Amino acid sequence: MPATQVLFKTIALVVRQNTAGIEESVSSLLKFLRDAGHHVVFEEETAAHLHMPGVAAMSAAQIGEHANAAIVMGGDGTMLGMARRLAPFDVPLIGINQGRLGFMTDIPLDGMLPVLQQMLSGRYQAERRTMLEGRVVRDGQDMFVGRAFNDVVVSRGAGAGMAELRVDVDGQFMYNQRSDGLIMSTPTGSTAYALSAGGPLLHPTLGGIVMVPIAPHALSNRPIVLPDSSEIVVEIMRGRDITVNFDMQTFASLQAHDRILIQRSPHTITFLHPEGWSYYNTLREKLHWNEYPSGEGKLA
Amino acid sequence: MPATQVLFKTIALVVRQNTAGIEESVSSLLKFLRDAGHHVVFEEETAAHLHMPGVAAMSAAQIGEHANAAIVMGGDGTMLGMARRLAPFDVPLIGINQGRLGFMTDIPLDGMLPVLQQMLSGRYQAERRTMLEGRVVRDGQDMFVGRAFNDVVVSRGAGAGMAELRVDVDGQFMYNQRSDGLIMSTPTGSTAYALSAGGPLLHPTLGGIVMVPIAPHALSNRPIVLPDSSEIVVEIMRGRDITVNFDMQTFASLQAHDRILIQRSPHTITFLHPEGWSYYNTLREKLHWNEYPSGEGKLA
Amino acid sequence: MPATQVLFKTIALVVRQNTAGIEESVSSLLKFLRDAGHHVVFEEETAAHLHMPGVAAMSAAQIGEHANAAIVMGGDGTMLGMARRLAPFDVPLIGINQGRLGFMTDIPLDGMLPVLQQMLSGRYQAERRTMLEGRVVRDGQDMFVGRAFNDVVVSRGAGAGMAELRVDVDGQFMYNQRSDGLIMSTPTGSTAYALSAGGPLLHPTLGGIVMVPIAPHALSNRPIVLPDSSEIVVEIMRGRDITVNFDMQTFASLQAHDRILIQRSPHTITFLHPEGWSYYNTLREKLHWNEYPSGEGKLA
Amino acid sequence: MPATQVLFKTIALVVRQNTAGIEESVSSLLKFLRDAGHHVVFEEETAAHLHMPGVAAMSAAQIGEHANAAIVMGGDGTMLGMARRLAPFDVPLIGINQGRLGFMTDIPLDGMLPVLQQMLSGRYQAERRTMLEGRVVRDGQDMFVGRAFNDVVVSRGAGAGMAELRVDVDGQFMYNQRSDGLIMSTPTGSTAYALSAGGPLLHPTLGGIVMVPIAPHALSNRPIVLPDSSEIVVEIMRGRDITVNFDMQTFASLQAHDRILIQRSPHTITFLHPEGWSYYNTLREKLHWNEYPSGEGKLA
Repeated sequence: MPATQVLFKTIALVVRQNTAGIEESVSSLLKFLRDAGHHVVFEEETAAHLHMPGVAAMSAAQIGEHANAAIVMGGDGTMLGMARRLAPFDVPLIGINQGRLGFMTDIPLDGMLPVLQQMLSGRYQAERRTMLEGRVVRDGQDMFVGRAFNDVVVSRGAGAGMAELRVDVDGQFMYNQRSDGLIMSTPTGSTAYALSAGGPLLHPTLGGIVMVPIAPHALSNRPIVLPDSSEIVVEIMRGRDITVNFDMQTFASLQAHDRILIQRSPHTITFLHPEGWSYYNTLREKLHWNEYPSGEGKLA
Repeated sequence: MPATQVLFKTIALVVRQNTAGIEESVSSLLKFLRDAGHHVVFEEETAAHLHMPGVAAMSAAQIGEHANAAIVMGGDGTMLGMARRLAPFDVPLIGINQGRLGFMTDIPLDGMLPVLQQMLSGRYQAERRTMLEGRVVRDGQDMFVGRAFNDVVVSRGAGAGMAELRVDVDGQFMYNQRSDGLIMSTPTGSTAYALSAGGPLLHPTLGGIVMVPIAPHALSNRPIVLPDSSEIVVEIMRGRDITVNFDMQTFASLQAHDRILIQRSPHTITFLHPEGWSYYNTLREKLHWNEYPSGEGKLA
Repeated sequence: MPATQVLFKTIALVVRQNTAGIEESVSSLLKFLRDAGHHVVFEEETAAHLHMPGVAAMSAAQIGEHANAAIVMGGDGTMLGMARRLAPFDVPLIGINQGRLGFMTDIPLDGMLPVLQQMLSGRYQAERRTMLEGRVVRDGQDMFVGRAFNDVVVSRGAGAGMAELRVDVDGQFMYNQRSDGLIMSTPTGSTAYALSAGGPLLHPTLGGIVMVPIAPHALSNRPIVLPDSSEIVVEIMRGRDITVNFDMQTFASLQAHDRILIQRSPHTITFLHPEGWSYYNTLREKLHWNEYPSGEGKLA
Repeated sequence: MPATQVLFKTIALVVRQNTAGIEESVSSLLKFLRDAGHHVVFEEETAAHLHMPGVAAMSAAQIGEHANAAIVMGGDGTMLGMARRLAPFDVPLIGINQGRLGFMTDIPLDGMLPVLQQMLSGRYQAERRTMLEGRVVRDGQDMFVGRAFNDVVVSRGAGAGMAELRVDVDGQFMYNQRSDGLIMSTPTGSTAYALSAGGPLLHPTLGGIVMVPIAPHALSNRPIVLPDSSEIVVEIMRGRDITVNFDMQTFASLQAHDRILIQRSPHTITFLHPEGWSYYNTLREKLHWNEYPSGEGKLA
């Protein structure tokens, strides 16, 4: 096949560390991709732990500039980490799981080659996911900037009483809230921490930002879904040992009257799924939607 | 003021029945509107119960064709009823409450005249609300068509066991669910029944449709927010005495294998609010967001 | 083995109808029990559908008077039905499931004989479960009396608006509530409908009655656990098409100002479990407590 | 009135600090009590901040030994603190609030004297509340011992991922749980943090211990109410920066494989309420049970 017909000319491979026996799968994938005319590179940490010579290593930024797609082998955590680093670029991601379906890693390792063959020849479904970005402002100065693919979480430490937070949206006062904290989540994050805290699922196509209070003092402080265009300001009114985190990857310590400005990021990330992929299938399997507690039988 | 400068030339008045002493307020409103150069008509039921001669009566359809705005005096229920009937037309609604703030009727009766003066001179905030429409299909035939401003609700009777419902969205299978029923709600309805059943609040600007299961058997059947474009099909798999209702106003009895097709209506309804109106203020007041159970005080 | 040493002299067998191929299991159980010196009878409906001659048939009342234990083969529903009918008597129940663990039927059909051998020789754990009883009073007259092993449920019909219920406990006013209805549940029922409606699990040894509102209008109307001694009165304040049911087995239609008086029944029912049985094991398996949505692995 | 007839001979006064203008109320109470023949002492911190000479000061332990009742003027927090310190003794508490009803401080400051007169003459309702106690065991050694009137809370720090906790009750494995933490609450605590985290209300007479997971990963990890006799063991399986606290008053830092043993304390605390006091009245007022979000009116 002449190179001009290759759809994804350069492909980056990202492989989760500490996966016993993964080398064999990586080797066969490597051979498959090269045989199909793709130029293959390793993400630099992957290169460091795999010890497979003869494959170029690239930083995330280099992948962002040079690769046409990235294939991630691992779990949702690996996918999340790579998505965060590739956010400023326009490189779509394909997720391979190691036997257990992920929300984002939807192709099983066993039997991945025929699926990839179809996808890399153009038969895929592209899905665009939104991100959030946030700034911590203290005394008029930006103290910290972060980016979240799942969620921005403001929360109190274990040894401190309830946090008191003031929330404004688009310049309008929403409420003062006493709680363990507040989650601002993307649709992607709506199946993660926000769900545990009582938030709804958000379909990725909807967009939107869901704000979920964690153990709020006022029983009527319920999750609220805001438009993508919302500019959210969370101000620390009272409370000790309060932190903001972005995807539980980056953290900043907060003090009284710090303000966190949160809005949708201009960046998005694109996932490629096999044809016939269905968001609802993933939800159903991950959330055990067909398993009934009573054991009185399933629908025929 | 010459009539050509009147912004809302013809205004329809809708007044809730059985409101003691409302005639005086209606009279002063009538005089105020006529003095300002508006042509005023009564909605026909209003005309029938008010017994105020000298004002023309119009049906909802006539209002839809001839009026430039409708002023509704009553509660959210009155507003909801009028909004449903005016849906096919493009007549904006202004809501006057009788002392208790509504989600939709946001102008207090006392002191309404100066507020209306400003609004009718063009100083208002317009807000567009989405609606749902649904069809019941049995053996390939449409059995029933309805429209909902708040919600479409499929639910079992009190004397019957759980309903078993199959849900598909955009031609994709979502799940089989056993529950008391399922609510499909607009952002407007998200502060009503859907909220009682555990659903999130949806900001009106977001659009979207929230699907909230009522007492679902599977504990992981959580509310899910879908895009406006979704085509939802709910099929009755099993269950006796199942009903679908639209805003609790129109009802259809269902039998096994009936399918209810639900999607966003092409119609919207426009509310006019005073300048400075804030959706969050309404939520805060209606949901008592600043009242804390512990009594240990509010934020300063 | 001389008959005087037989612990459970007369044993009643109760078998769920419409279980394909169950005759073989029943035959082997019958032989096993007779060989061990037990006198075996069939519950009368079981006798009617099994067509196995040579075994005496007894009504529930006769079983109550003459049997020393009842073995139920089926699901939780079969167990529940028999428990309700045996409530006035003191006959312990043993539950055999057909492959799928029940909350009450905890012995798998496959391999039941050695388990039963141990249990019938005295090596079992006895567990006592409480019941509720309720009366509907209209104009000072008792209209209906019922008994519940799981729950007493007051609920509105699908075509009617919210029910308005007034609740008093021990002669003290609790609240007026607007909702779809109200569940009064035993610990046994706390894993059934009450759980779907947001109620907590109650350990059977705790006793207590949990009151769970169904989709309550006021967001602070939360489940409340009351002592066994509580005398609960639910009065219908407003609402059409309201019903009370007892275990979804018996029903009464209600009208405005009917009062339902609910308290703990003087009867209890005893379950016999194999040695080593654990309530928590059952909960864990039935509620999938070790299955995590994220797929990021289980604890070692 | 001869001293032999005085029911509560020695009464300790506990007054919250930083309450502007409280001295006047304390003076009138002091005079009232002395006139009625009671011997009055100040709790030592109260003595220090009030600067009212001529009244003896006692430590909590001395009050425990010598006083027949303690009157607490303040909020629920003040009451909670005193109850914790008086737990080993048998001194009943009377709670005076400063205008805002508390769950525990149920007598308003305005008009307290006639109410106290009746109560101190023997016309009161006594209510006994249970407590929890807990020990942290590391490598077989007790590291920390605590006592809780509201709750024992195991929770993760803001900068750490989910805690993984193993729970055993009465020597039986319950589950491994991933969450933000776990609350073990008394009935008294069931209106506090446990309620915010989704737990049920427990009537004080019921006793029982409610275990409420905080934002649990598994959606079926629901609150469970256990009998008073339960011996609960929570083991830290994984997680950084995990803490246990008792009533948010005393704290211990935990590390992997620490075990926290929790059970009902042998101590109880007695509250004295005015005649006619009702637990449900307090709940109704504190939880705004008669305020409906929709504004469509209350029950007549």
